[in-house]
Amino acid sequence: MTSSIDPVQNLAQLIACPSITPAEGGALSALQAMLAPLGFSVERPVFSEAGTPDVENLYARRSGNGPHLMFAGHTDVVPVGDEGAWTVPPFSAEIRNGEMYGRGAVDMKGGIACFVAAVARHLEKNGALKGSVSFVITGDEEGPSINGTGKLLEWAKARGEKWDAAIVGEPTNPDKLGDMIKIGRRGSLSGTVVVHGVQGHAAYPHLADNPVRGLVTLVDSLLYPVFDEGTKDFQPTNLEVTTIDVGNPAVNVIPATATATFNVRFNDTWTGETLMAEIHNRLDQASRRHKLRPGKSEPVNYDLNWRNRVSHVFLTHEEKLIGTLSSSIEKVTGNRPQLSTSGGTSDARFIKDYCPVVEFGLVGKTMHMVDERVALADLETLTQVYERFISDFFSQKT
Amino acid sequence: MTSSIDPVQNLAQLIACPSITPAEGGALSALQAMLAPLGFSVERPVFSEAGTPDVENLYARRSGNGPHLMFAGHTDVVPVGDEGAWTVPPFSAEIRNGEMYGRGAVDMKGGIACFVAAVARHLEKNGALKGSVSFVITGDEEGPSINGTGKLLEWAKARGEKWDAAIVGEPTNPDKLGDMIKIGRRGSLSGTVVVHGVQGHAAYPHLADNPVRGLVTLVDSLLYPVFDEGTKDFQPTNLEVTTIDVGNPAVNVIPATATATFNVRFNDTWTGETLMAEIHNRLDQASRRHKLRPGKSEPVNYDLNWRNRVSHVFLTHEEKLIGTLSSSIEKVTGNRPQLSTSGGTSDARFIKDYCPVVEFGLVGKTMHMVDERVALADLETLTQVYERFISDFFSQKT
Ligand SMILES: [Zn+2]
Ligand SMILES: [Zn+2]
Repeated sequence: MTSSIDPVQNLAQLIACPSITPAEGGALSALQAMLAPLGFSVERPVFSEAGTPDVENLYARRSGNGPHLMFAGHTDVVPVGDEGAWTVPPFSAEIRNGEMYGRGAVDMKGGIACFVAAVARHLEKNGALKGSVSFVITGDEEGPSINGTGKLLEWAKARGEKWDAAIVGEPTNPDKLGDMIKIGRRGSLSGTVVVHGVQGHAAYPHLADNPVRGLVTLVDSLLYPVFDEGTKDFQPTNLEVTTIDVGNPAVNVIPATATATFNVRFNDTWTGETLMAEIHNRLDQASRRHKLRPGKSEPVNYDLNWRNRVSHVFLTHEEKLIGTLSSSIEKVTGNRPQLSTSGGTSDARFIKDYCPVVEFGLVGKTMHMVDERVALADLETLTQVYERFISDFFSQKT
Repeated sequence: MTSSIDPVQNLAQLIACPSITPAEGGALSALQAMLAPLGFSVERPVFSEAGTPDVENLYARRSGNGPHLMFAGHTDVVPVGDEGAWTVPPFSAEIRNGEMYGRGAVDMKGGIACFVAAVARHLEKNGALKGSVSFVITGDEEGPSINGTGKLLEWAKARGEKWDAAIVGEPTNPDKLGDMIKIGRRGSLSGTVVVHGVQGHAAYPHLADNPVRGLVTLVDSLLYPVFDEGTKDFQPTNLEVTTIDVGNPAVNVIPATATATFNVRFNDTWTGETLMAEIHNRLDQASRRHKLRPGKSEPVNYDLNWRNRVSHVFLTHEEKLIGTLSSSIEKVTGNRPQLSTSGGTSDARFIKDYCPVVEFGLVGKTMHMVDERVALADLETLTQVYERFISDFFSQKT
């Protein structure tokens, strides 16, 4: 059973699996091979949906008499990028100057490797757990996230699974281990605005209606004024126009349509519904204002289409869970972590509907980059934090 | 020699040649076959330039003792568009209800057919011309206009050719024959603005710099305020943003660059140079204003690239030429034509550097459209106008 107590060895085995999303790449099998000897019962459900790739997932549980702690994460990784620019091959897990290089080193095969090692050490010392631990691991976090954590939780719930708390092992620390716990996340909402004009010749603008003029007016209304100044727990809501496209190659032709797509990260000032209403309202007002501009007498003719699903804003209020994790971190690292709600969406947005959830993992600096890597010292420290947290979590009265 | 006195027959021969730009398609040969029997010496220079197709052109002159009148135009035509939507095949020159259908019927094989008929009738009645007439005909008016009229005039000038006046046979009438002479044209200028930002994740906008924000600010400064209100002879200067492109498919990614292309049609308030300076100034001011917006502290980082060549604004001041043409039109049609400078560029912009130039031709309504067509009655009337103009031009004291 001592084979899984070293997070460095665990991580080397996981990095060696080229599990570029949505490929399993052997990574879930490698994890299964670590967990089974630790007494976990492991299942590997595959989920499908039309228009998306089938994805393998893993649910592993070791039952005990007490509360149920979930560890959640993903073994899929983003593509390697410019492979020639890597110092070492991206699936070689080579160590240089005390750091292990490899795609997924911090996001987030490293977090999984540490949690496995923490459980192994706990079991080695205590012989058992004072409760249940389960691993909720998907291969669809870096992809569309449709056949991943959301479906895996539904699947487990349907089989009677219930959890008391969850920790997600994503890299949460900006600079050094112990910097930051994530306790919530802004919501995310995307839409596309299509402005319909009338095509024509650039020399006869009165016979045409250039949709670019209307689109510029509408886009400006989405960018200014800002939506809010932020709240006690959250950064300000922010909208980015991620693309504008017309695709007209002829400089003497006024185009027929123009399209812009935007993404909003929104805080608890808003719900998905109130924010959608605000955006509709801004566009409608700007559309009518537009007709006051020179040469225009009609409101902008536009469609607004919402893209994908809304990721709702959430915030974990469970002070005992947050307090236990914070003090585990402080005892091991000497740092009192900041409680943050910043950053991109994570699968915690699915988990929050089942139990309180917090996120803590490695230092995220190199994630998604060439030469993604982790300090071996951080792997050891995070393992100790997780081990301490497991002990403290099962010791507390719930 | 009577074979060319009928503009309907002349036009049918020209339409039958599929001279979609830059293809000669037999059209210049057909024209040559009409002109040679009328005593014109015909030459067919071909011009080339790297990156553009070679183009055939035609220069034909019948010399006489007196002033030199140029007739200018083009035999190339725009593509047929949706061929299945045509009432008759687009190169069949079929007549339906008193109208001849075909690509180029009004733009501008019809104008050429009428001028040939006018010269033929004049020669039939008078036996000779009281001066010289030349045809300056290109196959590169609907294309890039690089191997066409501009080079043909240089070529002719180098051979000692000089002209006293020119008439361009483009379709100038919006509704009915006699509506409008064109005596000048706004200039045309195009440019591309590229805004450079910093790519990043939509959830971490402070680590990125979205170029779309900057581009929207810059584009707005080009659209408003308007450049001028128009002048005595010209419509207002007008700028159209013909395309904006980012090409970013990922809604959670802030893109690195954003591009907009614009075209300005400008009047005699401006020269190409003063307008370029104004646009530079607007962009620079907007770039600096941008840093006052929320979350921005730097001016917009952008490049401005001018596209193609400037078409300079021009206006014909030769009142005798304009007066002679106007009265010829009025005598034949009963309409006193409006003098206009509206519309897109024409090859008159090249001719104005050699001699005074005016434009008068058919009714342009169906040009570039499916079912381009001309009333047979208009062909006869325009032939009479041109014949009258030739007589009046050579009779006047120059
Ligand atoms: Zn991740
Ligand atoms: Zn034309």
